[in-house]
Amino acid sequence: MTILESIRQPRDLKALTEAELGELAEEIREFLVHAVARTGGHLGPNLGVVELTVALHRVFESPVDRIVWDTGHQSYVHKLLTGRQDFSKLRGKGGLSGYPSREESAHDIVENSHASTALGWADGLAKARQVQGEKGHVVAVIGDGALTGGMAWEALNNIAAAKDRPLIIVVNDNERSYSPTIGGLANHLATLRTTDGYEQFLAWGKDVLLRTPIVGKEVYEALHGAKKGFKDAFAPQGMFEDLGLKYVGPIDGHDTKAVESALRRAKCFHGPVLVHCLTQKGRGYEPALANEEDHFHTVGVMDPLTCEPLTPAGGPSWTSVFGDEIVRIGDEREDVVAITAAMLHPVGLGRFAEKFPDRVWDVGIAEQHAAVSAAGLATGGLHPVVAVYATFLNRAFDQLLMDVALHRCGVTFVLDRAGVTGVDGASHNGMWDLSVLQVVPGLRIAAPRDAEQLRTQLREAVAVDDAPTLIRFPKESVGPEIPAVDRVGGMDVLHRSPTAGSSTGSSVSSGGPAVLLVAVGVMASVCLQAAELLESRGIGCTVVDPRWVKPVDPALPWLAADHRLVAVVEDNSRAAGVGSAVALALGDAEVDVPVRRFGIPEQFLAHAKRGEVLADIGLTPVEIAGRISASLTARDDFAKGDVKGDLSEAEPAKEKPE
Amino acid sequence: MTILESIRQPRDLKALTEAELGELAEEIREFLVHAVARTGGHLGPNLGVVELTVALHRVFESPVDRIVWDTGHQSYVHKLLTGRQDFSKLRGKGGLSGYPSREESAHDIVENSHASTALGWADGLAKARQVQGEKGHVVAVIGDGALTGGMAWEALNNIAAAKDRPLIIVVNDNERSYSPTIGGLANHLATLRTTDGYEQFLAWGKDVLLRTPIVGKEVYEALHGAKKGFKDAFAPQGMFEDLGLKYVGPIDGHDTKAVESALRRAKCFHGPVLVHCLTQKGRGYEPALANEEDHFHTVGVMDPLTCEPLTPAGGPSWTSVFGDEIVRIGDEREDVVAITAAMLHPVGLGRFAEKFPDRVWDVGIAEQHAAVSAAGLATGGLHPVVAVYATFLNRAFDQLLMDVALHRCGVTFVLDRAGVTGVDGASHNGMWDLSVLQVVPGLRIAAPRDAEQLRTQLREAVAVDDAPTLIRFPKESVGPEIPAVDRVGGMDVLHRSPTAGSSTGSSVSSGGPAVLLVAVGVMASVCLQAAELLESRGIGCTVVDPRWVKPVDPALPWLAADHRLVAVVEDNSRAAGVGSAVALALGDAEVDVPVRRFGIPEQFLAHAKRGEVLADIGLTPVEIAGRISASLTARDDFAKGDVKGDLSEAEPAKEKPE
Repeated sequence: MTILESIRQPRDLKALTEAELGELAEEIREFLVHAVARTGGHLGPNLGVVELTVALHRVFESPVDRIVWDTGHQSYVHKLLTGRQDFSKLRGKGGLSGYPSREESAHDIVENSHASTALGWADGLAKARQVQGEKGHVVAVIGDGALTGGMAWEALNNIAAAKDRPLIIVVNDNERSYSPTIGGLANHLATLRTTDGYEQFLAWGKDVLLRTPIVGKEVYEALHGAKKGFKDAFAPQGMFEDLGLKYVGPIDGHDTKAVESALRRAKCFHGPVLVHCLTQKGRGYEPALANEEDHFHTVGVMDPLTCEPLTPAGGPSWTSVFGDEIVRIGDEREDVVAITAAMLHPVGLGRFAEKFPDRVWDVGIAEQHAAVSAAGLATGGLHPVVAVYATFLNRAFDQLLMDVALHRCGVTFVLDRAGVTGVDGASHNGMWDLSVLQVVPGLRIAAPRDAEQLRTQLREAVAVDDAPTLIRFPKESVGPEIPAVDRVGGMDVLHRSPTAGSSTGSSVSSGGPAVLLVAVGVMASVCLQAAELLESRGIGCTVVDPRWVKPVDPALPWLAADHRLVAVVEDNSRAAGVGSAVALALGDAEVDVPVRRFGIPEQFLAHAKRGEVLADIGLTPVEIAGRISASLTARDDFAKGDVKGDLSEAEPAKEKPE
Repeated sequence: MTILESIRQPRDLKALTEAELGELAEEIREFLVHAVARTGGHLGPNLGVVELTVALHRVFESPVDRIVWDTGHQSYVHKLLTGRQDFSKLRGKGGLSGYPSREESAHDIVENSHASTALGWADGLAKARQVQGEKGHVVAVIGDGALTGGMAWEALNNIAAAKDRPLIIVVNDNERSYSPTIGGLANHLATLRTTDGYEQFLAWGKDVLLRTPIVGKEVYEALHGAKKGFKDAFAPQGMFEDLGLKYVGPIDGHDTKAVESALRRAKCFHGPVLVHCLTQKGRGYEPALANEEDHFHTVGVMDPLTCEPLTPAGGPSWTSVFGDEIVRIGDEREDVVAITAAMLHPVGLGRFAEKFPDRVWDVGIAEQHAAVSAAGLATGGLHPVVAVYATFLNRAFDQLLMDVALHRCGVTFVLDRAGVTGVDGASHNGMWDLSVLQVVPGLRIAAPRDAEQLRTQLREAVAVDDAPTLIRFPKESVGPEIPAVDRVGGMDVLHRSPTAGSSTGSSVSSGGPAVLLVAVGVMASVCLQAAELLESRGIGCTVVDPRWVKPVDPALPWLAADHRLVAVVEDNSRAAGVGSAVALALGDAEVDVPVRRFGIPEQFLAHAKRGEVLADIGLTPVEIAGRISASLTARDDFAKGDVKGDLSEAEPAKEKPE
């Protein structure tokens, strides 16, 4: 039995000797490399927090003491030490989540994978303890990258204000988020990292001054009596102590004993303390350390020795199609600039940055700033392209609305990982954008169905200089081109049933197809397959790709009026999305063809592969065709006064509308 | 002609003598007090920035130099100096906006009234200048309160990183936002305010050390050679310089010459500089200074001498009904705690704070932290009530979704100023919440129609401990109680037409009323009046208040099925709101009664009184009844094959759906 296997719960760590702790760290790294290589997942960040996590669980008594992990992808070691060592289905359906999960363990608190939240959670937990007179420590573990997010600042400002409310902030400083951490804070942390030198100077200075008669003592005492004290005046602990936090550090985060000692000091302090630990992303695994881009932040399934990917390469990714086209656009237009929130390469801006280094900005994990500074850039005469994962745009909703849209700024948002993303679980799905953004006046939204459309629509988007535009596309490989057979208004007709009849001898006066399928973006192929199934049952279909889904194309109500049912299919929440906008447009035009919405139900989605999730929520050709068919049957039955059929979801008594 | 009247543009200021500048400041204050007393508006903040604004416009060349005002309610003086001295219709329809307005002046840039945005805008503007090689300064004016917002931090981190990009940040430090500024930052600013003492010590220390042979010089040079230099090591300029910003201050913000001199110094520095100005909110107006609560942050129409309100007091406000009830709930339940984002009194938590000082937190202008710390509090066993203006909740959308809702935290959000607020203009309307929040799984939303419902629904909300709840209500006085005549499911039926017929001899088989009016919250009285109008035309109506508008009551499709048309009326965006949710619920139930949505169109609303805005956008009984009637007529005409009628919005050719 390995030492790791003998650890069933955190308290098992306490009996280990220093030598055993060293061995345990080795075992954990060995385990991580092999386990994560087998399933894919976050590797670099977890290799960096092995000793830190062990120390935390030796010093604190989780779950009575509460350890909050920021951006939970750094919680794998924590999982291993809290009874979860079966990583065989990591991030897969039914397997361990890639983030903390309250369902998995009482040691887990925050499941949200969005960064910079841990300090706010910890502040709330500490306040709750104080109000209720409970004992126990609250510890937040946060990366230096996550400190660049505004939420971290808001929390620090609150935490520092309460001198009598204990709360321990562990800054896991590896000088990066996904990318190297940027900005004034990063520079400040760099200064703090050299504090050792200052500490030595400090000791020397005090010694010298006190040994110097009269003047030295005078200076020392003046300093000592000054508000910040002698030590503080000399050592550049700077902003954290300025705010009112006790600062402990910097600590070598790979020296378990040193980290433990710092944490024990912090534990004895009855107020807010910040423990600054220096760690190395990818620690102990050469290929990760050698990777300059991201130190193996996330890896796919790979050979742990050669690091060769073991899953077949698909076609080009949506990201790369965008990344290539934006470089071409940048070549042609000097006013096009780009913004990323700490994810230059993942959002496909790497090549743009190489080619136009003065026209791209990494603003840190700071989506709010990405949007608001884009408004400034646009007002200043440029056309910014803000490239983010769809789920992270939620952080900048107010700025998109109030800064970009209210000021009619020509800013293009490019949302990667839109729709169901799968393995990263509930908080990584980009399934809200088409709903939340419906309210934004003047915003135009495109959902390309294939690579060619992405390129075309991206160009259409950056051509708009007096209003914001947005393009969204999913994770993974882009599929084959889907040609249009016709154009109606600004919309592409992808398919029209060759037969003109509808399914049953109903009262429809038109001879056109029964169903209009409105296919949003990549749902085009799903809709085409659903149409095929419907046709095989004798139900004629039109499949249309609106291309720009906001605003609704003025021709859509006209087109809809020729059908008995409109089905809107989107890789987005059913609530408030494109389906809602289409229904509104039809109602405004007094076109009362019933609308059925297909999308993501109102729930958070557990981790599993994208295809598995789509199947689970019924976003498949078979399910869609089945439900449309049932809906038509129900209506025909009503028309005939014969209410029955397979209407699984239709409960209330109904009558024929007219 | 007064000096103020002689200032037509900023450059007119340059010729003034020091004595004239003093007179001008007097005139401006006199003008502000009388003008704002006549219309209502932001008084205290503007009285505090008179000299600061004059100095800015003497030192910089607006609009070539760009002056960005954070939370633009401090821009009245700026308006006076840039050719806008007719305040007679301030914030009224057709009058001056209460915020900067690009339509009014080329000197205005940012119209958004949400705080903490100016630094991000300025960063974008400065970057645009750098990329394009343009000359000219970029200046952001931001209050100390707004620095507590996360956006300010994200921007500071970016601004500080570029040593070669000039940008001047003027911190208008009056120690408050609406309320006194909180947190570690406030403490730090307090330390900075005493820097004068340190500067003196610094001069003395350098002198003493350099006069001391050997050791003194050695210490001085060691300090001097150290990374931060001698001055920085001693003076507690702290976090701003730690981040990499040049710090100038503190400056007496009411000493025009001193401010000018500081700004000129800042102008010569070719990188990011922070100028720290100390000002006094309400300066020069005794009643404002004497008001401890908010120094007349905003005033209504009043007598400028006695400060007595000159508009008739309405009934109790929605805010006060909430404020009273939450105290009663707090009495009964020790676990109920409250959070405000720098607006304790405006959101009605003043009495709660007096009674339960240990159970309320002002987190600063930090809505993100309000929401995420509430998640922590709820997880820690308490029930937090987060009270904010509806428009500001947009800042915390991601946190409500990903921290509160994903973790099924029992947090109650109370949205004041929901719907059209009017005079504060585009960015103060709370018209998005019912749309944006539709996607949040598990969230329950209530829209009370009267005071009694607010009290009842607030209690229903705080009783839910395993999911978030939200209550929204408008600005202004609460109207008379509106009794229910029946209950269907969880919904209150407010009215049923006594006659059973519908308007025309249509094919409706049911003998019930033709129209179901779904009245969201305060739209109840509008709907009742619309119903009366419809009935006078022979169109029978049912008016229902769903009370909880999310999720849609399961009984609603059943109820709808007995009508020919459903009209959903909400004081919220037409896009994606309750109307969308009702349409979805009907479709899911295969109830294809047409739904018409009445609400706010997809546009930003210019400032005017709430009633004027509602009339402009057609949210009145007459308009609603007219459109419903037209819609019914159109449908009847189609039924008869006779297409005509007053369908102003219906353009496409249509056919009868079945």
